[in-house]
Amino acid sequence: MHRTKVKVVEGVLDANDTLARANRADFDRASVTVVNLMSAPGAGKTTLLERTVGDLDGVRVGVLEGDVQGSLDADRLSALHVPVTQINTDPGFGGECHLDANMVRSAMPALPLEEIDLLVIENVGNLVCPAEFRVGEDARVMVSSVTEGEDKPLKYPLMFRACELVIVNKVDLLPHLDYDLDLFDYHLDAVHPGVPRMLVSARTGEGVEGWRDWLVEVARRRAPVSA
Amino acid sequence: MHRTKVKVVEGVLDANDTLARANRADFDRASVTVVNLMSAPGAGKTTLLERTVGDLDGVRVGVLEGDVQGSLDADRLSALHVPVTQINTDPGFGGECHLDANMVRSAMPALPLEEIDLLVIENVGNLVCPAEFRVGEDARVMVSSVTEGEDKPLKYPLMFRACELVIVNKVDLLPHLDYDLDLFDYHLDAVHPGVPRMLVSARTGEGVEGWRDWLVEVARRRAPVSA
Repeated sequence: MHRTKVKVVEGVLDANDTLARANRADFDRASVTVVNLMSAPGAGKTTLLERTVGDLDGVRVGVLEGDVQGSLDADRLSALHVPVTQINTDPGFGGECHLDANMVRSAMPALPLEEIDLLVIENVGNLVCPAEFRVGEDARVMVSSVTEGEDKPLKYPLMFRACELVIVNKVDLLPHLDYDLDLFDYHLDAVHPGVPRMLVSARTGEGVEGWRDWLVEVARRRAPVSA
Repeated sequence: MHRTKVKVVEGVLDANDTLARANRADFDRASVTVVNLMSAPGAGKTTLLERTVGDLDGVRVGVLEGDVQGSLDADRLSALHVPVTQINTDPGFGGECHLDANMVRSAMPALPLEEIDLLVIENVGNLVCPAEFRVGEDARVMVSSVTEGEDKPLKYPLMFRACELVIVNKVDLLPHLDYDLDLFDYHLDAVHPGVPRMLVSARTGEGVEGWRDWLVEVARRRAPVSA
């Protein structure tokens, strides 16, 4: 009788990581850089995108919007003539509080990958679970609004640890808040020492140029694939 | 041969509902009213409690704090000489983004039920999953900060539908925001018509008296069990 030796596969990735790799391979083939943008509800992700995606020095951008329900943010962004694809986690995915690699995979056929250089994924507003699921992105960015308080890095450490850039938004409100920026920096360094941070106000435009430049720079890091 | 007819049990509750009922029975036996307080991160739940739990017209209050990590909020509240119990969802419960009935059940032996009339459960900051899990509470309250924008009822409808009271916090910042209260009311009525709402500023104390009176009233709805 023919005997087959059982092969033990070690270090098996979980299903999400496997799918994130498949997404990554598709993005690589199309030479698209992907940024996963995360924050608590109402921290200003969409307004930050409205302020920037209209003019990125020739970098062609698309947005993948993640929401439990509705397409409010997608509607705002498509008004800027940027291709926007909407994922609703409610009807198809059980009302999930985050995007995962499978949801992004499901959206893949709807993404205009050949027409863009940069895809920004606006995740569901939540400081917990989005940080646990890689979706095949190149970089993760989080937005922390000063109205949320300085203690958030200590309360949601995984989120603050998972990202390569922390955007501190709504700084125009600082004169009206009891918010200590040094204390926030201190807490942030406690969970993610030295992570780059950027002070901005999506409302007034203060500091938004730096965020725009960061997006352009990240998109250009990837050399275009020659045809 | 002895034959047993198979009984079909219909309408089986899921595990969470079964445990929520068990919690409810324990709270009833101790005549403790339970309020489940929910919001996005940084909406001001803890500050609202700091403003009220120190003086509730003789109603004896305890707090059950839900956080992914740490005990920052519990430490703030215990400074008011209120009994505070901390649940961390991270080490024991896999970093969950919400409290469920089983977590509250696990905390039950640590709760001083005989010494309190009212238990406020401060849920994990999140506008999605906390609304999906009843924990055995009498009432659910959510806090929506004006800094989060007027669109939140449309984006997180389950949360706004699940609660009996919506506290609109940080109204002291209204002069510095482009926030339209009428538009928020309109969106809120679209998902939960007529739900009571209360405008407050936990920071300045504006309107906090109403929230305090509501807590007292809810606790007194339950007639004390005679010994």
